[in-house]
Amino acid sequence: MISDKTVERLSLYRWLLETKVDKDTVSLFSHQIAAMACVSPAQLRRDLMTTGYSGSSTRGYSVKELAGSIAGVLDGNEPAKVALIGMGNLGRAIVSFLRGRRSRLKVVATFDTDSRKTGRVISGCRCYGQNRIEEIVTREQISVAVITVPSDVAQKVTDRLVNAGVTGILNYAPVPLRVPERVYLENRDVTTALEKVAYFARKSTEKE
Amino acid sequence: MISDKTVERLSLYRWLLETKVDKDTVSLFSHQIAAMACVSPAQLRRDLMTTGYSGSSTRGYSVKELAGSIAGVLDGNEPAKVALIGMGNLGRAIVSFLRGRRSRLKVVATFDTDSRKTGRVISGCRCYGQNRIEEIVTREQISVAVITVPSDVAQKVTDRLVNAGVTGILNYAPVPLRVPERVYLENRDVTTALEKVAYFARKSTEKE
Repeated sequence: MISDKTVERLSLYRWLLETKVDKDTVSLFSHQIAAMACVSPAQLRRDLMTTGYSGSSTRGYSVKELAGSIAGVLDGNEPAKVALIGMGNLGRAIVSFLRGRRSRLKVVATFDTDSRKTGRVISGCRCYGQNRIEEIVTREQISVAVITVPSDVAQKVTDRLVNAGVTGILNYAPVPLRVPERVYLENRDVTTALEKVAYFARKSTEKE
Repeated sequence: MISDKTVERLSLYRWLLETKVDKDTVSLFSHQIAAMACVSPAQLRRDLMTTGYSGSSTRGYSVKELAGSIAGVLDGNEPAKVALIGMGNLGRAIVSFLRGRRSRLKVVATFDTDSRKTGRVISGCRCYGQNRIEEIVTREQISVAVITVPSDVAQKVTDRLVNAGVTGILNYAPVPLRVPERVYLENRDVTTALEKVAYFARKSTEKE
């Protein structure tokens, strides 16, 4: 199993190769990709070893082959289907942001409790009532969920998603969630992140 | 220096103590707080040792004193001043989300290039033109910045913030940023996070 930090960096390298590299550029050396990604060349080479693709010592990495070998690690045979629960400001922003960016991740359903939102297409995606979570997640074989509901209902929503077959959760609700060991959980609470950044920002100032 | 993971958990413990504990509860045992935070009691005790406060073996931790000792570690004498740059969907969602949640972090200015937004109060906070970043950051002594601008301008905005005195950055732009060593940078790209969750979600399904 590849570490989560390596998976993150592989995702970043691919994105850089696909969006920040001139169309005429056929190959790149490790130090060039490393500079774009703000990592050391040694780190980059270690990460790329997990894909099994090694470039040529004279020409570097082929841009196309490298993107393909990263895809071989990161992607399944089908694009991962994603649901987002909680179409408030943050939920809508995330759906808009993800739309049309990557074909490997497809937001196929959103959920809310507000009847002014349900039954409509919002930010390009159908919004269902939260009473239909089990039905839609099972029918669409959704494996990944983004949680942007208020913290007091986040655990209940999580339990229902997990029971319906979701195995990966990206949690923006500012509350810790309990999930079985087989479910991968990533917490993205804005306040916690900002308190951390503020702490280290202050430490940096105090050192001066 | 405390590790970033510990700082994150201390922030979480405090939030739980302040919002999820019944007003009549005077003290809690480590296993009770650990259960709320979804960490092991050993982990919790290790984290709390960094605050220098140890509870009583018979009554556990005093809720009030524990929150105070965590504050002693996390907070400066003044609330940290925060700026957010890029008032698109995500930027507005984050400002709304942070507003009124914690007095230790205060979003004092937002910035955008869109003249329909600048000069107005949006989500409770004044929005300035991006040409005024240096002026406002210096005048308000802003130490922390949240970046929600498009990726092609994120590095330029970052350089200007750092030159104006910002020492902590929370980056939501999907691009790596270069900052001096003294500046703390946390990347929160949604796509990278979601690709990571999708990868581990798939691995979990394959194992079955």
